[in-house]
Amino acid sequence: MSPENPFLNHEKKEQERQAKRDAVLLAAVKIFNEQGFHSTSLDDVAKSLGISKPTIYHYLGNKEQVLLTCVEIGLQQLIEAAKDVEKQSISGFEKLRRFLFLYGCRNLDDFGRCVILTHDDALSKEGLVKFKALKRVVHEALLNIIRDAQLDQSINAEHDPKILAATLTGAINWSAKWYNPNGVLSKEETIQKMVDILTYGFEKK
Amino acid sequence: MSPENPFLNHEKKEQERQAKRDAVLLAAVKIFNEQGFHSTSLDDVAKSLGISKPTIYHYLGNKEQVLLTCVEIGLQQLIEAAKDVEKQSISGFEKLRRFLFLYGCRNLDDFGRCVILTHDDALSKEGLVKFKALKRVVHEALLNIIRDAQLDQSINAEHDPKILAATLTGAINWSAKWYNPNGVLSKEETIQKMVDILTYGFEKK
Repeated sequence: MSPENPFLNHEKKEQERQAKRDAVLLAAVKIFNEQGFHSTSLDDVAKSLGISKPTIYHYLGNKEQVLLTCVEIGLQQLIEAAKDVEKQSISGFEKLRRFLFLYGCRNLDDFGRCVILTHDDALSKEGLVKFKALKRVVHEALLNIIRDAQLDQSINAEHDPKILAATLTGAINWSAKWYNPNGVLSKEETIQKMVDILTYGFEKK
Repeated sequence: MSPENPFLNHEKKEQERQAKRDAVLLAAVKIFNEQGFHSTSLDDVAKSLGISKPTIYHYLGNKEQVLLTCVEIGLQQLIEAAKDVEKQSISGFEKLRRFLFLYGCRNLDDFGRCVILTHDDALSKEGLVKFKALKRVVHEALLNIIRDAQLDQSINAEHDPKILAATLTGAINWSAKWYNPNGVLSKEETIQKMVDILTYGFEKK
């Protein structure tokens, strides 16, 4: 038998730690989304995993820190989506459509929904600063995509970028409140239909 | 001097009672919108008017009843807007645009914002039933406007009416969260720009 490699061992332990942390986050985000942050206690989360509350503290911290990690994951997904889209060699119009599609799909994931369903009053002052800073990164990325699309003249240049951004994201954000995962349409089908409406409007051509 | 007319007197008293009730509702809705329902006590509302809490109970009932009356006013405004629009002799497309404009403007009023900012967990089971029933009336009115506009072929018939309705109202609802009354654009200007985006899309034509 070969001697145990201490480096591999360390890596394995780190993977295990990460897997446990991820499991706590996934359990927490589902319960936050279902019951609301105020009505959820870390005991509920611990119980759902058959672990103790101190185990959660060990991996993630207190309830607000768990929530903050969840919304950070949700917002980081949107930041990644913007980066992916910006790299593509397509028109500004197509970039905007693709970003909205990805934004909408992430938005209906557990962590994305948590971002939408988290109200400012769930967070402490410091937590709110972090939450808003990340949201601002997403907002700025969207504004850049819109401005580029206006510059390459692939979208209508007369719209105020800020109002356009707020209209588009508002429509999609709200879907985290009404989308029914047990309905006929998949998340992707639903978001695609919304993006088509937002892109072309409802005017008859 | 003519003898006092007891009927006029009764009417005057009723007007006074109504004015007091309205003042309590307006004070309450502003504080709910600013602080959130959970963080507001009827003491805050009473204090802002220089009255006692039992006076509020007398006119409106407990905190949930006050909130319910506020959201009922907000939703009733939307139901009236739909009725007004339905009476007009214009195309279905124009009806939909006008309804969205009115919906958006009401939505940025004190009572309209309260509807958007009220989360289901603020209400008791019975309260939630009332709240949802009124929202359904608005939703059905919008669906009727959309279906009529598809029937008279003034809007694109390929959109699923439910997804179209959810996309349009979602975009507008969200504005109750981001609209800044101290900004450059008035409520009406902001909503008009949003309705134009929603109507025509952002595609370059």
